[in-house]
Amino acid sequence: MIRDSLALKFKDGKVKILDQQMLPQQELWIDVEGTDHLISIIKELKVRGAPLIGVAAALVLATDMTEKMKPSDFLVKAEKIRKARPTAVNLMNAIDRMIAVFDQVGLNINKLLDEALNIFDEDKKLCDDMAKAASALIRNGDNIITHCNTGGLATAGVGTALGAIIKAHRDGKKIHVYVDETRPLLQGARLTAWELQKAKVPYTLICDNMAATLMSQKKIHHAFVGADRIALNGDFANKIGTYALAINCHYHKVKFHVVAPKTTIDPKCKSGAKIPIETRNPDEVRGVSGSFGKIIWSPKAATVFNPSFDVTPVDLVTTMTIDNRVFKQAEIKKGKLKELF
Amino acid sequence: MIRDSLALKFKDGKVKILDQQMLPQQELWIDVEGTDHLISIIKELKVRGAPLIGVAAALVLATDMTEKMKPSDFLVKAEKIRKARPTAVNLMNAIDRMIAVFDQVGLNINKLLDEALNIFDEDKKLCDDMAKAASALIRNGDNIITHCNTGGLATAGVGTALGAIIKAHRDGKKIHVYVDETRPLLQGARLTAWELQKAKVPYTLICDNMAATLMSQKKIHHAFVGADRIALNGDFANKIGTYALAINCHYHKVKFHVVAPKTTIDPKCKSGAKIPIETRNPDEVRGVSGSFGKIIWSPKAATVFNPSFDVTPVDLVTTMTIDNRVFKQAEIKKGKLKELF
Repeated sequence: MIRDSLALKFKDGKVKILDQQMLPQQELWIDVEGTDHLISIIKELKVRGAPLIGVAAALVLATDMTEKMKPSDFLVKAEKIRKARPTAVNLMNAIDRMIAVFDQVGLNINKLLDEALNIFDEDKKLCDDMAKAASALIRNGDNIITHCNTGGLATAGVGTALGAIIKAHRDGKKIHVYVDETRPLLQGARLTAWELQKAKVPYTLICDNMAATLMSQKKIHHAFVGADRIALNGDFANKIGTYALAINCHYHKVKFHVVAPKTTIDPKCKSGAKIPIETRNPDEVRGVSGSFGKIIWSPKAATVFNPSFDVTPVDLVTTMTIDNRVFKQAEIKKGKLKELF
Repeated sequence: MIRDSLALKFKDGKVKILDQQMLPQQELWIDVEGTDHLISIIKELKVRGAPLIGVAAALVLATDMTEKMKPSDFLVKAEKIRKARPTAVNLMNAIDRMIAVFDQVGLNINKLLDEALNIFDEDKKLCDDMAKAASALIRNGDNIITHCNTGGLATAGVGTALGAIIKAHRDGKKIHVYVDETRPLLQGARLTAWELQKAKVPYTLICDNMAATLMSQKKIHHAFVGADRIALNGDFANKIGTYALAINCHYHKVKFHVVAPKTTIDPKCKSGAKIPIETRNPDEVRGVSGSFGKIIWSPKAATVFNPSFDVTPVDLVTTMTIDNRVFKQAEIKKGKLKELF
């Protein structure tokens, strides 16, 4: 029983996690020593990406069990890790599945591990499905822009939007990727650039405010992005900067594609106006922090607006790939996303 | 004979320059010890802004002369400083004016100093003219976004676009300014935020990719930006990110204003397509550098696209304030800029 993904390995009953805070400077693998250790790894953002956190939590919970433990020990650990990141739906779903197995078979370590490996394998398969469907939109010779990180560092598989891009490259299509750095947390500059380099996909790093210039020079054919939450009408929330990129695509008639699993659709949410947007620590905008330390380059007392996400209306979307199906804007506007529920 | 601007002081025959590399962390004034010293200050970007560099060069050249010097000493120094930043038109113009005085009166230190002070005073007056004309576009209660730094740190006066904003505030209009950080060199986060704080203008710092969200929430009424070069048809080059901001304004029907002196118009340049765009050091995009040192957060070998400027077409411009006149888009399209020559 071995599993091996870009940022998570399972071998000889042990879980290893790639420390994403050290990327791209160092590829440091952490031996996870149990659920408490994983909770601190999650809180320190060393592992990120909602699907990957869910997979890691299930695997670590299963491997943290010993024959000597009591059933109540399992439930205490499960509840603790379930709360490590309150907004991550995948983490809750993964732990709920583990508890459901426990309710059926009790503290059966092999069965619990089987379920954790199922969660891993299903996430990988889902990524493959999305990548296959969405990469069909990419032609030989296309240039693509992407935002944030939506690749193998966020999932147990090839990822969502970046998975589609990497699959197109692996299928032999000649492509070039422009990577938005994605201020303030720089997931594009740090993580997507690293992933593309590792996958040997030719890429160019730019600041977020440079995409429009490339589009005006007709150097970009598609944008591919992920989604954090999709409303039933097709409006969607994603990493801050996605909306501005979509407006640039619209102005320059560049195709704008969303790739996400069906679980990202919130059937209770009718439109983008209903999606709440969290704001984060002002120091993220006042400067930058990372493995090199913390820097503030603006006035220390600067008032800051720092939303994590923005909402892009369906009017700016060319296609949405949901699991293994590609929906065109017109289909989404006819209510096709509702029919998935 | 005293002159006092935000980043340049002249008193008792001596020139002091505010070290802009240390802003906003420290307000460090450098006693300029002659033309060679000023050349190194210019090259280290401790003084920036084409108008301010021209003013500083003229003043330092005049005060660097002594009775014992030969006329040829003046010309050698003048030629040397003229080359300190090859693309700055204002620097060349200022030194040419000093040489013209020298050609008339020889090494007359008082006359040379008078001319340098004229250059200072004319720049200040020009800023006042632009600020008066452009600030009339701002109503009480307006929220304004600006990009890069176009204020008193770049000129001997209140600046161009930022000068108009600060004048509106000084005239008692209640305004709020959103400051784009302006990647990669962060002139907004470092310099504009500092200037607004110093002028007690309420402001909020954002990353460049967040402006669209504010506009979608109807929180922005105007954008005010400067220009590096204006073509006769009204297309203009400005700091990278200006074009994306203009597209966002267009999409959200936010007014987009340019403020610049007439000297920015290039009468030989018919349209934006003819404006050459310089690209800069890739490490500026791979990370950041400043008084805190140099950081690279992307893969070290990342391929980078790093244009200094972009070109915004006149179609996205609401008004252009040139010296003391405000031109509407329709007037510019009718050829009004040509009539200035």
